[in-house]
Amino acid sequence: MSLPTRTRHIALAARPQGAPTPADFRLEEVELPELGDGEILVRNTVMSVDPYMRGRMNDVKSYVAPFALDAPLDGGAVGEVLASRSPDVAVGDRVLHGLGWREHAVLPASRVTVVDISSVSDSAYLGVLGMPGVTAYVGLTAVAEMREGDVVFVSGAAGAVGQIAGQVAKALGASRVIGSAGTADKVARVLELGYDDAFVYKDGPVRESLQAAAPEGIDVYFDNVGGEHLEAAISALRLHGRVAMCGAISQYNATEATPGPRNLFQAIGKGLTLRGFIVGQYPDLAAEYRERAAGWLAEGRLTSDETVREGLDAAPQAFIDLLAGANTGKMIVRL
Amino acid sequence: MSLPTRTRHIALAARPQGAPTPADFRLEEVELPELGDGEILVRNTVMSVDPYMRGRMNDVKSYVAPFALDAPLDGGAVGEVLASRSPDVAVGDRVLHGLGWREHAVLPASRVTVVDISSVSDSAYLGVLGMPGVTAYVGLTAVAEMREGDVVFVSGAAGAVGQIAGQVAKALGASRVIGSAGTADKVARVLELGYDDAFVYKDGPVRESLQAAAPEGIDVYFDNVGGEHLEAAISALRLHGRVAMCGAISQYNATEATPGPRNLFQAIGKGLTLRGFIVGQYPDLAAEYRERAAGWLAEGRLTSDETVREGLDAAPQAFIDLLAGANTGKMIVRL
Repeated sequence: MSLPTRTRHIALAARPQGAPTPADFRLEEVELPELGDGEILVRNTVMSVDPYMRGRMNDVKSYVAPFALDAPLDGGAVGEVLASRSPDVAVGDRVLHGLGWREHAVLPASRVTVVDISSVSDSAYLGVLGMPGVTAYVGLTAVAEMREGDVVFVSGAAGAVGQIAGQVAKALGASRVIGSAGTADKVARVLELGYDDAFVYKDGPVRESLQAAAPEGIDVYFDNVGGEHLEAAISALRLHGRVAMCGAISQYNATEATPGPRNLFQAIGKGLTLRGFIVGQYPDLAAEYRERAAGWLAEGRLTSDETVREGLDAAPQAFIDLLAGANTGKMIVRL
Repeated sequence: MSLPTRTRHIALAARPQGAPTPADFRLEEVELPELGDGEILVRNTVMSVDPYMRGRMNDVKSYVAPFALDAPLDGGAVGEVLASRSPDVAVGDRVLHGLGWREHAVLPASRVTVVDISSVSDSAYLGVLGMPGVTAYVGLTAVAEMREGDVVFVSGAAGAVGQIAGQVAKALGASRVIGSAGTADKVARVLELGYDDAFVYKDGPVRESLQAAAPEGIDVYFDNVGGEHLEAAISALRLHGRVAMCGAISQYNATEATPGPRNLFQAIGKGLTLRGFIVGQYPDLAAEYRERAAGWLAEGRLTSDETVREGLDAAPQAFIDLLAGANTGKMIVRL
């Protein structure tokens, strides 16, 4: 079998104003470079679209550099090694790496992780065993310092991180886990996954829905959404309650600065802690999570859904739909 | 000397709408009760007016019950014991207790602390050795987890808590302490007290003043003010920066809910922690602080100012002026 000499990728054609549109992306075909010493050629089998990528499409300094205009996007991907000039990675290995949004990638073997797909799918390394899973675990443990018996509220409960956060909270001994999601179907699904209660946040003021679901208040809020959800959670939090600020998807497409919670001052009297994080700030916890997650998966205590789109051409729309909440569980593009 | 049978106090005549006015207070003369078993009669020599009292004047549930309408206010006071039916407290003792806003108090000896005024003034127990001092210490240590070498920003730097916070931060090894205050005189004073830099927050956008004072950013923000200050601090905070949310005096007289910081989402990428507190949530640290503060006072590393008003009649205006920033250091009413 001859090796490919060309590949296709998605480039950022324009910085989105508000919600991204297909015109902000461009499919391009390019020559693949020759393999240098220590490099490998990977055929990507799955790639990730994640909410955090929206922030990188703006030209603002943040914790990761913005995507360059007219250059290929990148992100998590898993693929099969087609050629290797490294002793550490063999042809046929499956590897997790950071050059998604393209059908083939050439990169140093030192920047990939060989993964085992004998008992889980390749895409698991982009979801339940990957960044979203570690994010859920880090947010609950190191960031929110969840304790046994806590009442935990998770927004975006049907999302890639939210599905896992609810189940991990139960596994860690939460007395009650409440979720919010955008549709009745998603609510039904998170209840199946083990959430004790859940509501459709569009059905009424979040504050009232949360109050009904947790009349005695909450101890931990895992925030994937920001905005009205965060304000409602602050009102519901009890003494010494904690917020893990993980994402603010309600605001990612905002074109103006959005006001923060009007009740933030309640943090003083209630002794609340709000702590933001990105998963890369807690590198030591990834291995710990993967070990525990493997056990929970084997015991059937951890399940996760995928919403799968097919083909590189579908990736921009998959990302656009992700920001609009079209996914249940992890949004994956299979290449 | 015969004991008094009557006393005067300040009652809450009306719940203030916005900034309090003299009409919200009423001076009353009342009969003193007979001493019950275990009770003492105290002649108050100094009483405290504190920003937190403004919150208690609203009829809203908070960490302390609201003041009752048409009943005497209360708060920190130090006085001399005139009569005692307790073996634990002697006539002539000086005691710290919670029944301020009145010239005499009758209360159980179990609810007072005998204090030593041989080397410090009675009012020190309402300021540098009292609640404001402990608040500054708790905020820096347990809440903001200040570390040696941190760049620390304190708003309300000329206030009772702020003056102490800046000096304690230096004593604990901050590499640089920056303050904000409302007038040039206050700024001059906090620089004398050991702040490395300070600015008049009314002279321009706080964000710009802070940026000029700390071009490399800050690690800790001790927030006495809220509002624009908090937003500016969030922008200036570096990776893993921490905010001790102690007060929000800019908002205490607000009649509508004020929006939170528009840049709160920065907490995610920078891994920031915002933690609110009231000093009573950390009872174990009061003794530790007093011991260290005694040392710092003796070494001349800790100084604090008082703004003193004379007489119970002056107490309402002292409180009104406190909220408008008329004080440098602790606002005290000497009775």
